[in-house]
Amino acid sequence: MQGPKKKLVPGVDRPLTELDVMALRPKTKPHSMQWPMHRSWLAIAWDQAVESAEDIGRHISRAIRELPSTKASTPGPRAFDKLIGKDGKLRLQVDKPVVLVLGSGWGAHSLMKVIDTDTYEVVVVSPRNYFLFTPMLPSTSVGTVEFRSLLEPVRVSNPFVNFFEAVCDRIDLEEKVAHCTGKTPYKDGRLPQFEIPYDVLVVSVGEQPATFGTPGVEEHCFFMKEIPDSVRLRERIQSQFELATLPGSQEGEMATALHFVVVGGGPTGVEFAGTMSDFLREDLKKKYPELMPYVRVTLLNSQGTILSAFDEKMQKHALDNFKRVGVDVRTGVRVTEVTNDTITLKGGEEIKYGVCVWSAGNAPRPLVQQLAEQIPEQAQYQPGGRPSKLAVDPFLRVIGARDVLAIGDCSLVVAGQQGAYAAHMINRGFMPLPPPSKLADYLFPGQQLFATMGSTLAYDDEGGEEGEEGEGAPRLIYYKKPFEFLNLGIMAYLGDDRALTEIQLPFTKVKLSGSLAFLVCVPDQARLKAQVFGRDLSNF
Amino acid sequence: MQGPKKKLVPGVDRPLTELDVMALRPKTKPHSMQWPMHRSWLAIAWDQAVESAEDIGRHISRAIRELPSTKASTPGPRAFDKLIGKDGKLRLQVDKPVVLVLGSGWGAHSLMKVIDTDTYEVVVVSPRNYFLFTPMLPSTSVGTVEFRSLLEPVRVSNPFVNFFEAVCDRIDLEEKVAHCTGKTPYKDGRLPQFEIPYDVLVVSVGEQPATFGTPGVEEHCFFMKEIPDSVRLRERIQSQFELATLPGSQEGEMATALHFVVVGGGPTGVEFAGTMSDFLREDLKKKYPELMPYVRVTLLNSQGTILSAFDEKMQKHALDNFKRVGVDVRTGVRVTEVTNDTITLKGGEEIKYGVCVWSAGNAPRPLVQQLAEQIPEQAQYQPGGRPSKLAVDPFLRVIGARDVLAIGDCSLVVAGQQGAYAAHMINRGFMPLPPPSKLADYLFPGQQLFATMGSTLAYDDEGGEEGEEGEGAPRLIYYKKPFEFLNLGIMAYLGDDRALTEIQLPFTKVKLSGSLAFLVCVPDQARLKAQVFGRDLSNF
Repeated sequence: MQGPKKKLVPGVDRPLTELDVMALRPKTKPHSMQWPMHRSWLAIAWDQAVESAEDIGRHISRAIRELPSTKASTPGPRAFDKLIGKDGKLRLQVDKPVVLVLGSGWGAHSLMKVIDTDTYEVVVVSPRNYFLFTPMLPSTSVGTVEFRSLLEPVRVSNPFVNFFEAVCDRIDLEEKVAHCTGKTPYKDGRLPQFEIPYDVLVVSVGEQPATFGTPGVEEHCFFMKEIPDSVRLRERIQSQFELATLPGSQEGEMATALHFVVVGGGPTGVEFAGTMSDFLREDLKKKYPELMPYVRVTLLNSQGTILSAFDEKMQKHALDNFKRVGVDVRTGVRVTEVTNDTITLKGGEEIKYGVCVWSAGNAPRPLVQQLAEQIPEQAQYQPGGRPSKLAVDPFLRVIGARDVLAIGDCSLVVAGQQGAYAAHMINRGFMPLPPPSKLADYLFPGQQLFATMGSTLAYDDEGGEEGEEGEGAPRLIYYKKPFEFLNLGIMAYLGDDRALTEIQLPFTKVKLSGSLAFLVCVPDQARLKAQVFGRDLSNF
Repeated sequence: MQGPKKKLVPGVDRPLTELDVMALRPKTKPHSMQWPMHRSWLAIAWDQAVESAEDIGRHISRAIRELPSTKASTPGPRAFDKLIGKDGKLRLQVDKPVVLVLGSGWGAHSLMKVIDTDTYEVVVVSPRNYFLFTPMLPSTSVGTVEFRSLLEPVRVSNPFVNFFEAVCDRIDLEEKVAHCTGKTPYKDGRLPQFEIPYDVLVVSVGEQPATFGTPGVEEHCFFMKEIPDSVRLRERIQSQFELATLPGSQEGEMATALHFVVVGGGPTGVEFAGTMSDFLREDLKKKYPELMPYVRVTLLNSQGTILSAFDEKMQKHALDNFKRVGVDVRTGVRVTEVTNDTITLKGGEEIKYGVCVWSAGNAPRPLVQQLAEQIPEQAQYQPGGRPSKLAVDPFLRVIGARDVLAIGDCSLVVAGQQGAYAAHMINRGFMPLPPPSKLADYLFPGQQLFATMGSTLAYDDEGGEEGEEGEGAPRLIYYKKPFEFLNLGIMAYLGDDRALTEIQLPFTKVKLSGSLAFLVCVPDQARLKAQVFGRDLSNF
């Protein structure tokens, strides 16, 4: 493991210009590489395995320091104790550079697991104090999987990070300060306001559900993003059955209460429809046999096809499966309004429903939109001119910003492995100096990024191989490894223990559908448990 | 097992008078027994064991019928299919007598487990569709125990009962009809209204938290009665820690946020204070070490002592234990008002708090109060003239009512074993004819019940030993076994793996305090698990 750098941030007080970047460039010819690099799957996998070995070493050393005996003797000051200043004008008084991470999703979680907390003061700000294993969320709403088995509290993921339960409202890129608002009010109703100054900012806030401005969606539909969504959905499904089974409920009321509509044909919507149909056939049929004639599951999709990430044959398989288990799929329909009991389609058709799950894609969070608007260089990368994601270079640096990385769904390159990549880069002492803002260096044909400069910079006091300066002066070294995505494949659960799976292997892609695909992808024993014991039918 | 009686309800259309009861009495001298009977503990235990053997037989036969293979071939009509009539004027068209059970707590649950659903159409009405193991509820709010491990859905407890999620608002004792309101509204906002006619009514609705009309309690305090209470409490505890740890929180705000106050020194309040102190010392100290100086747990009790059910030595032990683990106990203080951030005591003292748990005893539910007011004979048994519980005779029959049993906390004789007793009595074909309303037969010195008539009545077509009528006419038989309580002991958890336990054994009572008492009473492996893995700290 490389030791901490003493002068991580070179004395540059203003945003670097293109000239600065040119000056900082090594005299040797820059790498002329294409990105994403067309390296073989095995080469990327090997590199990641080597890095994982390093990460495991860090985990072990952290676990040892976490042992009660070790901990009691060295409690160690935390960032909290080092905060000075008054209300809303806090400063961290630390001798370590501050890495501020916004978010607690896939990217932030993988970064937290790997980041070197000896060298950096890591501060995490998120409205959610745990990481959530989102792919299994639809299963929790029908009781197949327990919520708590899907989450890991941030303070458990890495006890050496400082976590603040808050939302970041605004970033001052010049001052390098994040302005945050707490989630829980003080007794006088005031929401906590505070600032976190950072040396490196990692934006990993993900996205929010897209409603496309459709009236009534926010009020009447369930999103499948967070655990409270799923808790409320579970309550609602149960209470609709309890309502329909009451003496005096008329046939029309029963049919309305028990019509479950899913809007959106992506993996989440498909998985929810599949899981719902399992729940109906396997559990509810036993407990409410008299209600089965009134139950319907409908999947509405605005596109002509569902699961567009999969190939046509696989999509066909999914549709056939839904036909078999009784999920009614309607493609090419657009929802124009949702009221308390009616979904209106474009063209005027009205659908009475009991519960509506909305998973029709994602929209940018306000902070991302704000950041993208704040950075002039971002405009040219925004599709349709409306800011939606942060454009990054091959080193995940936000184009046009200084010391800012963006990972996960809020960045234009989407991958869960970005978190670990960013942590490795920071751990090795490389600060995300601004990427060159010269457009020629970055070409975006569609969503693809190409870069001509394959390095980011750090100063090395002990002298690096590639530095140009004389003895005593810090030498520049270059981080030559841009982010590479190791594709492991994709999967979608269809219900009835069937799934679609594309597994990426060294030289080929294996496509599976049906029960075998399900077995390959089962993430834990949760489904098996549901098969043995049945799902939990309690309503609270 | 005795076969079903054909003429269970004799042709009496009006409430029985004292003369009727006299006429129905056997010519032989009635048993002159005292109740509660002073039989030996072993004799009661033996009787209960014999009855349990019968119950096990019923469970096995039920389980066989529940097997998928059996079930598919004989789906069997359910009460739901037999409901006829219009909105709010439903009638069950069944050839079996209807046993209507109100509630899904301890009494109702034990009755449901044992009731003979071949002979009776059992209908359960409760706003909660599951049974909850209440003693462990305080542990769920700190994450020691998972909610779902404490509950059993009604439809799982006994798949052959008919469950309706609703509240019973009113009983028509003359017409023998329960008027109910559903919990979930229809899409037009209307709450379902319906009626359930019954042959036997079992009132098992429990009690609700008593606020003694103290202003602000309903709005600002947490009750420890139901799972949603505990879910919200868990969220609140977590969010107070997250709030206090934010940069910018002032010392006073932190001390207020982290002051946990428990009102009430009964087993629930004491267990919550103990569990909270465990949570602080074992888990939160690791995750929020900087906040520990600001955390306080206070137990307020209006009486001079806590845990009044235990003897003085045991109470002293509990107080010493709380002193050791840092729970501040204040006895003889009465809360007069609760606001958003302040608890005011009698005398004017004000206490700033973050979270307040209110477990200061119970009050009657509106239905029980209504019933007691409706039945003139009940007035004389109500302490202070205000109806609070239903007075019952040794056979759990509600005094002054016809075909009504009351069990559990809503009755004047409190015991969890009442549910099984009532089921056994009903299973054997005995209907709860009204107990004699002649006051002389029932004496209430304080809370003690004495009865001079030790029997309840049933008709037996096949001729009974004790009937007086001629051949062909149904004969009267008498159920001679009044309810007897098998005392198994009491327990209270104090925190730090210590407890107070009084275990009742055949000839003595064993009193334990400390860790041994805890080990004896640990109801499952939940606590052990919490010790190994720590509690769950996620906030949702």
